[in-house]
Amino acid sequence: MSTRGMLIVLSGPSGVGKGTVRKAMLKNSSIKFDYSVSMTTRQMRPGEVDGVDYYFRTNEEFESEIRNDGMLEYAKYVDHYYGTPLKYVNQKLDAGIDVLLEIEVNGAMQVREKMPDGVFIFLTPPDLTSLRERITHRGTDDEKTIDKRMEKAKKEIQMMTSYDYAVVNDKIPNAVEKIEGIIKSEHLRVPRIIDKYKKIIGD
Amino acid sequence: MSTRGMLIVLSGPSGVGKGTVRKAMLKNSSIKFDYSVSMTTRQMRPGEVDGVDYYFRTNEEFESEIRNDGMLEYAKYVDHYYGTPLKYVNQKLDAGIDVLLEIEVNGAMQVREKMPDGVFIFLTPPDLTSLRERITHRGTDDEKTIDKRMEKAKKEIQMMTSYDYAVVNDKIPNAVEKIEGIIKSEHLRVPRIIDKYKKIIGD
Repeated sequence: MSTRGMLIVLSGPSGVGKGTVRKAMLKNSSIKFDYSVSMTTRQMRPGEVDGVDYYFRTNEEFESEIRNDGMLEYAKYVDHYYGTPLKYVNQKLDAGIDVLLEIEVNGAMQVREKMPDGVFIFLTPPDLTSLRERITHRGTDDEKTIDKRMEKAKKEIQMMTSYDYAVVNDKIPNAVEKIEGIIKSEHLRVPRIIDKYKKIIGD
Repeated sequence: MSTRGMLIVLSGPSGVGKGTVRKAMLKNSSIKFDYSVSMTTRQMRPGEVDGVDYYFRTNEEFESEIRNDGMLEYAKYVDHYYGTPLKYVNQKLDAGIDVLLEIEVNGAMQVREKMPDGVFIFLTPPDLTSLRERITHRGTDDEKTIDKRMEKAKKEIQMMTSYDYAVVNDKIPNAVEKIEGIIKSEHLRVPRIIDKYKKIIGD
């Protein structure tokens, strides 16, 4: 019997670099975990693989999952559903494997409700100026669109209070090191390991 | 204005090696903290320095501190008081310096009451056999004395549930690394740093 794995939720405002940090973690990590593949109803693009990039499902299949409480979190963007299937997350956790989710702040709040013993990490920009730079460098949007995104990001940063940890994404290796440290320390939390010790001292 | 320092309480059953781990932390630590010097009513021994090894006080002075709520925790062993003066701890915390206490489990529970936002780390033996070996190697006690100590240690290990973290003292460098990781991660906890972020986003 292995200890149940830990759910790690990496979130933060749009444009902070969640995806980049997640990919860096998967590549060079000193710790072991699985990344949870999302489910979506959008079309598969050339080169994408079902079960690797996403689980590709029809609208009917996705809505049936929602009705059956099969989604840990989900949202609809531009007519398509995106979400985290509960089944795969639970299978891995039951096998003693840590699972990483990299999701938007609204999704993270849904997960908080369903799995409060997860570790919720909020990735933040060093300051608002650098976030604006990131958002601006992304594409060719006009000032008005960028202002709108900044307003949204500010609101998202205020949701930090609902998280366990906040990690500044100043440099990717720094952020990765801090997140890995958090994961290691969380594995030493008494509620997560008390069963093991009960065996040692014969309850 | 610096952020208030963090109180780190290192405790665990008698014989687990708290003092050795603490000394290793003070010597080679990659993190900055101050060690809280205890107060005692026992006689100063040759070579000891007041304010370095202990704050040496008279019985009357110590009991006056107790009456004035000046002790963060204290106990009486073999007719002498030992304890942690609150004033020095608070001075350092207010200056933004982390403070490490290395104390017995009963003292740690007193600190828990007074400073619940401290970080409580329980140092455990890998198993009871190795604890018995440690206790036995210590001196020339007979079986009965050792049995008594083991019973006490078992009871102390059961108090682990009142701690935030449990760290196995299998090898000292391992334990030190884990404790330092815990301290670093705790500094990333949202409640400890939210004020800083409020400034960034203009509240």
